[in-house]
Amino acid sequence: MPARFDKLLIANRGEIAVRIVRAAQELGLRTVAVYSDADAQGLAVQMADEAVRIGPAPAGKSYLNAEAIVQAALQSGAGAVHPGYGFLSENADFAQRVEAAGLVFVGPAPHSIRSMGDKAAARAAALRAGVATVAGSEGVVADAEHAVAVAAGIGYPVMLKASAGGGGRGIRVAHDASALRQQFATASAEAQAAFGNGAVYLERFVRHARHVEVQILGDGERVVHCFERECSLQRRRQKVWEEAPSIALDAPARAALCASALRLAQAVAYRGAATLEYLYDSDAQEFFFIEMNTRIQVEHPVTEMLTGVDLVKEMICIALGEPLRLRQEDIRPAGAAIEVRINAENAAKGFMPSPGVVSKLVVPGGPGVRFDSMLFPGCTVPAYYDSLLGKLIVHDRDRPSALARMRRALNELRIDGVQTTIALHQALCEDAQVAAADFHTGFLESWLETHPLATSTARLEKAA
Amino acid sequence: MPARFDKLLIANRGEIAVRIVRAAQELGLRTVAVYSDADAQGLAVQMADEAVRIGPAPAGKSYLNAEAIVQAALQSGAGAVHPGYGFLSENADFAQRVEAAGLVFVGPAPHSIRSMGDKAAARAAALRAGVATVAGSEGVVADAEHAVAVAAGIGYPVMLKASAGGGGRGIRVAHDASALRQQFATASAEAQAAFGNGAVYLERFVRHARHVEVQILGDGERVVHCFERECSLQRRRQKVWEEAPSIALDAPARAALCASALRLAQAVAYRGAATLEYLYDSDAQEFFFIEMNTRIQVEHPVTEMLTGVDLVKEMICIALGEPLRLRQEDIRPAGAAIEVRINAENAAKGFMPSPGVVSKLVVPGGPGVRFDSMLFPGCTVPAYYDSLLGKLIVHDRDRPSALARMRRALNELRIDGVQTTIALHQALCEDAQVAAADFHTGFLESWLETHPLATSTARLEKAA
Repeated sequence: MPARFDKLLIANRGEIAVRIVRAAQELGLRTVAVYSDADAQGLAVQMADEAVRIGPAPAGKSYLNAEAIVQAALQSGAGAVHPGYGFLSENADFAQRVEAAGLVFVGPAPHSIRSMGDKAAARAAALRAGVATVAGSEGVVADAEHAVAVAAGIGYPVMLKASAGGGGRGIRVAHDASALRQQFATASAEAQAAFGNGAVYLERFVRHARHVEVQILGDGERVVHCFERECSLQRRRQKVWEEAPSIALDAPARAALCASALRLAQAVAYRGAATLEYLYDSDAQEFFFIEMNTRIQVEHPVTEMLTGVDLVKEMICIALGEPLRLRQEDIRPAGAAIEVRINAENAAKGFMPSPGVVSKLVVPGGPGVRFDSMLFPGCTVPAYYDSLLGKLIVHDRDRPSALARMRRALNELRIDGVQTTIALHQALCEDAQVAAADFHTGFLESWLETHPLATSTARLEKAA
Repeated sequence: MPARFDKLLIANRGEIAVRIVRAAQELGLRTVAVYSDADAQGLAVQMADEAVRIGPAPAGKSYLNAEAIVQAALQSGAGAVHPGYGFLSENADFAQRVEAAGLVFVGPAPHSIRSMGDKAAARAAALRAGVATVAGSEGVVADAEHAVAVAAGIGYPVMLKASAGGGGRGIRVAHDASALRQQFATASAEAQAAFGNGAVYLERFVRHARHVEVQILGDGERVVHCFERECSLQRRRQKVWEEAPSIALDAPARAALCASALRLAQAVAYRGAATLEYLYDSDAQEFFFIEMNTRIQVEHPVTEMLTGVDLVKEMICIALGEPLRLRQEDIRPAGAAIEVRINAENAAKGFMPSPGVVSKLVVPGGPGVRFDSMLFPGCTVPAYYDSLLGKLIVHDRDRPSALARMRRALNELRIDGVQTTIALHQALCEDAQVAAADFHTGFLESWLETHPLATSTARLEKAA
């Protein structure tokens, strides 16, 4: 049987596009990058065998332009499309359009995206599979008044969430009906802008829980899990720091959580990479399913360093039609891994985006250190997209060692020309509660109120 | 009990000095670099907390100047000295001098270096422990006539080898008595220049064997092994490409080899990191001990990526007086790792050293890729020392995947301003025998005769 494709188009930008180009190259595939006008000099464009312009800088005209992407694939002779994360990665219509054009979509079948990538539908599927969920709406809420009516039943505070995507976009918290009415339009508009779909649903907002998620790989017949990640350190529902394993789980809790994720993924005969996200109440040792992301996630390297599994290559191999190469018993977590997101943001000014030109770059090295980024000296960080520059990931024998390694690697990392969140992570590395992994999803925002980052930076400089 | 030291002096240069600074920083130790005039702007000097000049550029005046190094440690308040590899790392007198000054030597006791680091003595110890050795002299040969007399007994070709160090320095092959008489002075002088000790011994030269070595860690009471590395790709007895596991070993052969290495290390109650080197006859499935290196080796990252053990940190922890943190059953090899040495050499001109200024540097990234080097943009590669710029190491689920990853990483690596061996490794990655790991210690030199590297480079450029 000939391979299903030998050329892959990457329908994304930034560090994840670079990540996918590397995986495809290692599998002997030719690669096609796509780019907006703002990304014409991007690293993925330089690294790929070919690159196709798909439109002007705004994502709606380029990375969310399904037609332009499918045309680029057909014109370049690519046989498959990898959507990365964000943009169209969880858009079932896009997946269907790719398949209708005779191309392979590197991800689940469109019906899986509809039933599980759609956050509202996934809650219903979880309930059917006997997995507890956070109290919320049955499916999408039609308008502000519908939301208020549902919220009256589940109690405030509530959270409006985009049904079509994750990553913290399209999320708003409301503490009463009046706020909820105000937030509805904002959440829906943000979801529309980020995912091309304004549908939102409602969920009870749980402030003091841990965010724990399970990585899944399936080939449409067999499903395996690659253990959990803990992503409780968030700012405005955006993950900032991720790690594995979660110290909140003991072995029975871990086994129960992973089994629940496997059950959900098996129920839809899942194909591709996915993440099942849960809130974990560590006092009660209870977990509640919140959503399934039917794509690769930003924080996937944490799992790769914990297990040695290359999730992006495995995704592509599955799309090539190979049966899953991993048996569950081969996936063995070892040591501890931590990832921090390096964003082009000015922490002293409310994390305002800081686009610009990177004048100097020093990448940390040595054992157990990985830096996945789109950066090179002289590169431009455009203002049009999210502010993620790259991810610094470390692995070592246990969590205290990994934390020491992160501290060392952050000290080596240098990015001049734009403001970054390096100092935030350096300050977090020195925090006693972070050192103890004693945190929940509300921790970081409270911490930021009492640790103005200008002060933290000054303190670090004084210590140095 | 207070820690035995909180400040570590690194008595070396280049990439291994950088490696040790990183390990020490992760352990919370302060660091002192030493430098010759040629290395005043070196990366380790920049990264360490302090740096002390120890003399002019020639190694004999600086990195082999035991007195200057001990004085630097005492003056800077360092409590320990890490010797790295090469230079004084296997010099028992140096270790003794360090200890006599009240400092901790990060390595074995001086008597262990004398009995095992001394290559001639180690052969005798192996025979006592029931480990087969290659036929050779009983200890050091006194002069050329003594060598000729011994060679008559064991048969030509023979190899003269430095007793005080490894790494291919001080080695000469002779095919008859006349050549042996000529080579004796050269080998002895080279040993003197490299290790401060001109003693040489004699060994039968085995051309068609694999070089397989076992990594050991011990705390003076308990010893563990971290499996084997295969280093058969050599040029002039210098390793060029190392990998693990060795595909030549099946499980019983691996178990026997590792058990033999453990037995030898246990016989001397070994403390620190060591490597036991063997020639392996894969046809007969027999192995012969050749030497023990009582120090960290250039190729140690191969084992680190295979097992997840940080050998340099473990060495330092042992020197701090901690009992070995690893149980044998915790050391689990996974997947496959390959390291290539990136040297500043002009392959088209007989691998002539190519010192100079590095004008541009692009370091490969992504999963399973590590680059240990002393390079930064604008750095100077001095002409005084060996030509190693750095090591590119990859790890993946199996050897074919690791090879594909190496090919990808080599394509990303760019070092402008000096000639390098990148093209050699790119050509090796395309070779069918290398892909099959069908090689022995004579393979690379024969290969180079039939693959002039200018041609290989041209071929690669044409393909690109």
